Amino acid sequence: MKQLNIGLLGLGTVGRGVVEILQERRTSLNARAGARFNLVRVFDRSWEKKRDVLGETPASANVDDLLNDPEINVVIELIGGLDPAYEYVRRALQAGKSVVTANKALLARHGNELLALARGRRVTIAFEAAIAAALPVVRNMRRSFVSDEIRSFHAILNGTSNFILSRMSEDDMDYAEAAALAQERGFAEADPTFDVGGFDAAQKLAILGALAFDTSIAESAVVVEGIEKIRHKDMRFVAAMGRVIRPLAVARRNAYGRISLRVHPALLASEDPLATVHDEKNAVMSDCSNSGPAIITGLGAGSRPTAAAVISDLVFISGRAEGDPQIWLSGDEPPQMQQSFAYRFYLRFEVADRPGVLAEIAELLAAEKASIASVQQYEGAEPIDLIVVTHNVNEAALFRALQKIRELDSVLAPPIWIRMKEDDSRAEFSEQKSNRS
Amino acid sequence: MKQLNIGLLGLGTVGRGVVEILQERRTSLNARAGARFNLVRVFDRSWEKKRDVLGETPASANVDDLLNDPEINVVIELIGGLDPAYEYVRRALQAGKSVVTANKALLARHGNELLALARGRRVTIAFEAAIAAALPVVRNMRRSFVSDEIRSFHAILNGTSNFILSRMSEDDMDYAEAAALAQERGFAEADPTFDVGGFDAAQKLAILGALAFDTSIAESAVVVEGIEKIRHKDMRFVAAMGRVIRPLAVARRNAYGRISLRVHPALLASEDPLATVHDEKNAVMSDCSNSGPAIITGLGAGSRPTAAAVISDLVFISGRAEGDPQIWLSGDEPPQMQQSFAYRFYLRFEVADRPGVLAEIAELLAAEKASIASVQQYEGAEPIDLIVVTHNVNEAALFRALQKIRELDSVLAPPIWIRMKEDDSRAEFSEQKSNRS
Repeated sequence: MKQLNIGLLGLGTVGRGVVEILQERRTSLNARAGARFNLVRVFDRSWEKKRDVLGETPASANVDDLLNDPEINVVIELIGGLDPAYEYVRRALQAGKSVVTANKALLARHGNELLALARGRRVTIAFEAAIAAALPVVRNMRRSFVSDEIRSFHAILNGTSNFILSRMSEDDMDYAEAAALAQERGFAEADPTFDVGGFDAAQKLAILGALAFDTSIAESAVVVEGIEKIRHKDMRFVAAMGRVIRPLAVARRNAYGRISLRVHPALLASEDPLATVHDEKNAVMSDCSNSGPAIITGLGAGSRPTAAAVISDLVFISGRAEGDPQIWLSGDEPPQMQQSFAYRFYLRFEVADRPGVLAEIAELLAAEKASIASVQQYEGAEPIDLIVVTHNVNEAALFRALQKIRELDSVLAPPIWIRMKEDDSRAEFSEQKSNRS
Repeated sequence: MKQLNIGLLGLGTVGRGVVEILQERRTSLNARAGARFNLVRVFDRSWEKKRDVLGETPASANVDDLLNDPEINVVIELIGGLDPAYEYVRRALQAGKSVVTANKALLARHGNELLALARGRRVTIAFEAAIAAALPVVRNMRRSFVSDEIRSFHAILNGTSNFILSRMSEDDMDYAEAAALAQERGFAEADPTFDVGGFDAAQKLAILGALAFDTSIAESAVVVEGIEKIRHKDMRFVAAMGRVIRPLAVARRNAYGRISLRVHPALLASEDPLATVHDEKNAVMSDCSNSGPAIITGLGAGSRPTAAAVISDLVFISGRAEGDPQIWLSGDEPPQMQQSFAYRFYLRFEVADRPGVLAEIAELLAAEKASIASVQQYEGAEPIDLIVVTHNVNEAALFRALQKIRELDSVLAPPIWIRMKEDDSRAEFSEQKSNRS
């Protein structure tokens, strides 16, 4: 029976979860995986305060005790961040140890180098836990859809942002209130910018996009826009259009092989499958040439779900042939990025209550070939909300128009723009007509 | 580089899809899987009529040419049915060849023997394609959730039944009309009983249940009820209750370790994740102790999706260590089945328009401790529709009551019963409040 001798770096909440699952499910794991999972040593700077979970397992505050232990053949890295995780993972791989990590930041930044290093040493680096916790999105992208050309995927990869937008829309909260509730529930970081600014999702998208399109990881190629600008009234206006707002991460390959990786909020038709993904849930909806569209939804974070993903990677490693590296990525080429984008846009202008405002705005939009699909003007005190939905328009052209519109005397605040999700993936699910109305 | 020398049994629509994908994606498959997929020989009784897809690949109408070929190390079985597929698969495994099959009937009936045989010969039998086509539900059950205790899963495993119920509810069709449309679209068999009677889903549930709960496969243990009794008016009555009907396959393990495997239509709250799975789509929603609830949805049938699942199994086999059998099931014990069930029930009675009917029915229900939660009586010509929703009631007791009710003079037709989905898995998704109303 194969034996995994495991060293664990980092005894935070996820690390604890891993230790607990290894203890609780020892018999079942051994039987199901046909391997023995042996936790040899734990590294944590303050392990002494966390003794309760360790039992007989030796622990140390000196990482060398773990990384230099020749008995250890798999290292689980749950420290997070770049420093010192990067150095530790490198050292582990260089020493011929396989690595399991939940560290999306590390992979987004240094993944190409670490994957090449693992390949060279003929060991594995596995990272199911880095994206959407226990949802097997990495594995599915790599393995189940290997016979497919992946044309695109649309995902919700940041639970905090999805929670905030769900509460705003369903509980009539404003942004600040929903963000405070997310923090209270423990979803959001103390500094929520990483979540709501889209950067967390961007790291995950960089990794998943590389898997889907067989390129190297290019974190800097991801175009990122956050959800901070969205207000409760946008939820109302959007609901009146039969739509909802979701924080999307979108990867596409166009007909010329060019790739786009984009994180931004978007308007979805309420019958879109991703529109039914609420609160802190994550989801990945892939559109594959042979398999067709598929969507996987569930918890994208949390101690136990993330720990379960780590364990599933251990099981995966235990099933690998000796000396057979798990080449998660075969693509060494950076992605060729698509540079020009067109969308339908939802625009909200806060304007003065005077004649001619709409004409001025319409003219500036028309000058950039942004054709108007619908207009709603709501009665009330100044500033008046003016909602414009455009037909497909080039993004750069629209932003030029918005800049000029901002300079109008009658426009009292920076315009708000939200993209509308392209309707093609909706068309793939178009049989899903609903009797809700 | 590892080489899979493949023999293909059966060149129907899925077989064609496999040959085509192997041709179309040869380069990408080799690169992504790090293995060579070499189609050595095809068996099909009427291969000469299907030459167009074969190119240079040798074919034969004599199965011995394939099964006795020592070069072939993987056999794909796409003949379907029990005879002769059972014999061919046995012979392949006995000859030390791994097998990939899409044959749920074969696995449900002979899976335990075939899995034991594969284990004994240290080869693999893989069957992702047997359930929900390219949706990786088998793989996820076995591998991704290996670190979890699976408490239950609720699935939609028969696309035809789901299509029929969706059309009845969303397009105001009656049963016969929707069933005819399913046939026209090519979903349903000429004899649709296998689909709409629940037997197709039962075979899949027997296999998935064994994987989830680590028991042997027990097809006969599945309790099966079809959707044929449902009428369009049920859809209307149910919609008025904010519910929809879906063809469920439910696997549960209770607190005493007893298992239930049941296929039946059920009323779901319209915000239940499975309520949003429409038409021919399949879905599996698992409730796992560590990972939490997760749902995967997509196409559950079709030539290309099923072929893609076959290819993913080839890739899976290519990544296995030599001599390391893929033990899909470690459980040799038959499941200990739960014998007693309670549900809330939706009941529809067609009754005469005369005083005292409701009292008679209520009395017979009360005699079996079936307490009534709500009653709706609709005005109109005889027979009058009387809708009763019960509180939780033991199933056997309810059926005794229904039998007596059927004998009442004032009851003009056999009563219709539909179970209501237990609310616990709904509670797991309870944050998913929706602003639809």
